[in-house]
Amino acid sequence: MILTTKILPRYAETDQMGIIHHSVYAIWYEEARTIFFNEIGIKYDEIEKMGIMTPLIELNCEYKKPAYYNQEVEIRTKIIKLTPVKFIIEYDIFNKENQLINIGKTTLAWADSKSFKIINLQKKYPEIYKSIEEIVEN
Amino acid sequence: MILTTKILPRYAETDQMGIIHHSVYAIWYEEARTIFFNEIGIKYDEIEKMGIMTPLIELNCEYKKPAYYNQEVEIRTKIIKLTPVKFIIEYDIFNKENQLINIGKTTLAWADSKSFKIINLQKKYPEIYKSIEEIVEN
Amino acid sequence: MILTTKILPRYAETDQMGIIHHSVYAIWYEEARTIFFNEIGIKYDEIEKMGIMTPLIELNCEYKKPAYYNQEVEIRTKIIKLTPVKFIIEYDIFNKENQLINIGKTTLAWADSKSFKIINLQKKYPEIYKSIEEIVEN
Amino acid sequence: MILTTKILPRYAETDQMGIIHHSVYAIWYEEARTIFFNEIGIKYDEIEKMGIMTPLIELNCEYKKPAYYNQEVEIRTKIIKLTPVKFIIEYDIFNKENQLINIGKTTLAWADSKSFKIINLQKKYPEIYKSIEEIVEN
Repeated sequence: MILTTKILPRYAETDQMGIIHHSVYAIWYEEARTIFFNEIGIKYDEIEKMGIMTPLIELNCEYKKPAYYNQEVEIRTKIIKLTPVKFIIEYDIFNKENQLINIGKTTLAWADSKSFKIINLQKKYPEIYKSIEEIVEN
Repeated sequence: MILTTKILPRYAETDQMGIIHHSVYAIWYEEARTIFFNEIGIKYDEIEKMGIMTPLIELNCEYKKPAYYNQEVEIRTKIIKLTPVKFIIEYDIFNKENQLINIGKTTLAWADSKSFKIINLQKKYPEIYKSIEEIVEN
Repeated sequence: MILTTKILPRYAETDQMGIIHHSVYAIWYEEARTIFFNEIGIKYDEIEKMGIMTPLIELNCEYKKPAYYNQEVEIRTKIIKLTPVKFIIEYDIFNKENQLINIGKTTLAWADSKSFKIINLQKKYPEIYKSIEEIVEN
Repeated sequence: MILTTKILPRYAETDQMGIIHHSVYAIWYEEARTIFFNEIGIKYDEIEKMGIMTPLIELNCEYKKPAYYNQEVEIRTKIIKLTPVKFIIEYDIFNKENQLINIGKTTLAWADSKSFKIINLQKKYPEIYKSIEEIVEN
C-alpha cells in the first residue's frame, strides 16, 4: 500500500533562506505516518494506550529541491520493511510540478510503552503484525 | 466572514504532559490565517512578493481545555478589526465534542517587506484594503 | 527576584521575513522559566514527578522589535503574581543594544499531574508555596 | 577540531512519550554548527550576507538512548569531510552519564545565496576554504 497525503507548508516552517527548514521534514513524515496508520485502522494514539510505542531509531533524509510556504506538497508513504522488532517507512515528497523534492526513511522499533524495551510484535500482537505484513511494499 | 479550518494535531506538537504544547497554537492560528486569506484570494506568499508583510505585534491566547494528538480540532477564524495600519484576527478552536478549547487573538501590522516600516494599507493598496473591509466581523 | 538568562536564537527559529518567528518567544519564555525555577531549587522535572503540573492558561506577547539569528538576546524573568491556584510570570527580552524587543506574560495554574485538576498549592505544598511567595516582584 | 557545546533540553521539545522528540536533534545539530563556526570566526549570519548559503542536502540520525527535559546534553561537533562543493559534519551527543545517545551527520552544500546554485568554495572564497580545511578531523 502506498498512501498519498497532502500538506500545506506553514509560515512558521520557513527559515531565512525563504524555504522550508530541513528539520520540518521529519515532522511531515510523522504526519504522513499517522494518516497512513489511521487509514489501515491502527491508530497510533490507540496502540499507544494498548502499550505499544514506536520510538525512532534511525532517520535518513535526502533534500533534492526546496519546499515553499503555501505551496502544497504530496507525500507518498509506504512500509518497505517489517521485522518482528522494527519496521522501515519510506516517504517520497513531490511538489506541484510533480518533481521529487525529498526522500525520507525512518526506522522505528516496536517497544513497550511502560518499560521502553523492545518487544517482539509478531509474538505479542500477532494480529497487528499480520495486518501490517500484508501491506508492505517490496 | 468566518472561515472554518480543520487541523489534525501532530505527534511532534505534544509535550510530556500528553497534550498539545501551548506554543503550537500560534502556529495553528497562522495556518488558519493562511487558509483564510487563500479563500478570499489574497495569498500571503503573493502579497509578500508585492512588498507587503504582516508582522505580528501582539498575541493573546486563552487555554481552556487541552488538545490531543490525532484528535482533530476545528478553528473558526474571523477578522474582528481593521484599520489602515493594522488588523486583528480572532481564532476560536473547538474539539470534536464541540467544546471551545482555545481562544486566540493576533494583532498584525501592515508593513513594507523591504524597510519593515508600517504602511497605510488604505492609501497604498486601496483595493486590498477594501476587499478586507467587506469581510470584517463586528 | 529577577533572573537574567541569555539565549542564542537558532536558525530553525527564523522565518522567511528573516527574523525570529513569533511562535518561538513562548518557547524562550519557557526556557527562561525552567532556568528560573532551577535557580531557586524547584526543578520543574522534579515537581512534575512529585505530582504537580503547571499548565498554561493564558499567554500574552507584545512584539516591539525583531530578534535575529545568532544575535544573542537577554531575558529578564520575574514572578509578578502568586495565588494559591495560579501564578503570573513576566519576561522582558532585550537585544544586544539593550533595547526592549518583547514583553511576555504567562499565567500558569497549579494542577495535579494525574487528574489535571487545579490544586491549592498553599494547602497541598505549603513549603513550595512559601519559597515562591518570597521571591514575587511587585 | 572538535567543539563541545552544551544544550539544556526544552519542555517544548518533549513529546508524549516523555522524551525529546526525534525532530529536535537536527535543530540541536544546527545550534552546535552555529557555535562551531562562531568559534572559528566564520559566523553563519555574516557569510550569508556575503552571499554564501549552506543548504542541507543530507541528514542522518541514529537514536541510541532518549534525552530528557532539563537534563543537559553535550554535543561534540567536528567536520569530517570537506570538498570544494560540500562538507560533512558529525555530531556525537552524550548525556550526563557520558553515554553516547545520538549520532548525527549533515551534508551541506556551498551555494550562492541569490541563485541557490552550488558554488566552488575553493575557487570563489579560497581563504574561507583554507581555514576550514585546516580543522577537518579525519
